[in-house]
Amino acid sequence: MADTLLSAAAKNASHLLSDPANMPWNPYYPPGSQILNYAANSWSVPALLGIFFTTCAILFTSTYFVAKRVDKTLTSAELSQIMWFVLSGCIHVFFEGYYAANFMNLGEKQTLIGQMWKEYAFSDSRYLTQNAFVLCMETVTSVFWGPGCLIIAAMIMLRHPLRHPIQIIVSMGQFYGDVLYYTTSAFDHYVLGVTYSRPETFYFWFYFVLMNAFWIVIPGYLIYDSTIQSARAISRLQKVEGTKKVT
Amino acid sequence: MADTLLSAAAKNASHLLSDPANMPWNPYYPPGSQILNYAANSWSVPALLGIFFTTCAILFTSTYFVAKRVDKTLTSAELSQIMWFVLSGCIHVFFEGYYAANFMNLGEKQTLIGQMWKEYAFSDSRYLTQNAFVLCMETVTSVFWGPGCLIIAAMIMLRHPLRHPIQIIVSMGQFYGDVLYYTTSAFDHYVLGVTYSRPETFYFWFYFVLMNAFWIVIPGYLIYDSTIQSARAISRLQKVEGTKKVT
Repeated sequence: MADTLLSAAAKNASHLLSDPANMPWNPYYPPGSQILNYAANSWSVPALLGIFFTTCAILFTSTYFVAKRVDKTLTSAELSQIMWFVLSGCIHVFFEGYYAANFMNLGEKQTLIGQMWKEYAFSDSRYLTQNAFVLCMETVTSVFWGPGCLIIAAMIMLRHPLRHPIQIIVSMGQFYGDVLYYTTSAFDHYVLGVTYSRPETFYFWFYFVLMNAFWIVIPGYLIYDSTIQSARAISRLQKVEGTKKVT
Repeated sequence: MADTLLSAAAKNASHLLSDPANMPWNPYYPPGSQILNYAANSWSVPALLGIFFTTCAILFTSTYFVAKRVDKTLTSAELSQIMWFVLSGCIHVFFEGYYAANFMNLGEKQTLIGQMWKEYAFSDSRYLTQNAFVLCMETVTSVFWGPGCLIIAAMIMLRHPLRHPIQIIVSMGQFYGDVLYYTTSAFDHYVLGVTYSRPETFYFWFYFVLMNAFWIVIPGYLIYDSTIQSARAISRLQKVEGTKKVT
């Protein structure tokens, strides 16, 4: 089934990629990047960024009020972690999921999220050129780490015993995916001399470096925190049971 | 510092890659793969495989006897996990570390491990063509998951409280790296029509599929096991303390 679908996609791709009429000029780096049926954005940059960050802000604050209403005993650490996992989960499922579902022809998309991706891709053209690593990493992220984030948010509310081990798994998925995302791009730039970001400072430093850094710093801290919490529980249990064995 | 080193590597690479004299014919797939100064192996395949698997078997069994001697109370589950982590850690550090340290000119290496890699690369030529994802994933694996495996082996001996959370982190690194290793190759094959394995059944099924499957199945089980063990400790502690809060 997957084979058949992918074979069809491959036939489609080779047919389209071999026809220069489907490859209009585009402003992405490196110059000459092959982007199928590229269409320039019709929305302005302030509009695209404004809608994205406003949506994030609304989601972030409404999560705070809903969670606080459901359980008044939540600590501020728990509340901020719930806000992170709901926001991050929604970005994975809807924003990154859109790319994963439309990676073959994202360059021609004029939908709201499609235009957001074409704006972001000024800092990393791999999103528009069927790059194997970016597509596989983003597909796993949207299918597993996205729902995983939302499940953890619920587990924090429930103080579920599985919360910390699952949090290590999901945050590790985000952290390691992001490390490989940065390092593959740096490798192609420094070693192979292929640069995916346009030269303007804004694209590289704001979109590529800063926007992705959140998924290094926050999951990094959460992995550390859950490791300490799990080890503390195991250690206390070892003392309670008067043994150094867990099971 | 890293910048300077990488820039030097880049200059070196572009100089070498631009000179067709450095690109002799090679038997790897896809045909026409660019492999710097390729030199065919001088050792026979049975010799290379024999040395590799004999070394693994010696390491595996000697770990068993050493661990059993150091602590007679180790269960058979603990013993087999120690054996796995020592073997896996040594493969990451020495075998994959060799590739990470020599990725620029692995095609010309006639050392024992260099020839083993050229044999393996019949199933995946990305190891000989400076592929960004394979290099970054293998570098992280040899630098972090390799020593991590050896630390976990020691932690199992010590029944250290950090063992299970650290085991989730390291096994997730192995598992996710391997998932991306398989999926990026499948993507390039099915969608872009680029195949990195030679067509002979042995290379694809034995080297590529089977040899890597160990790092899906075993870390997958170990992540599951450590998740259950951590959650059980947290759950029991919640009961002991009469609270659903861990801290």
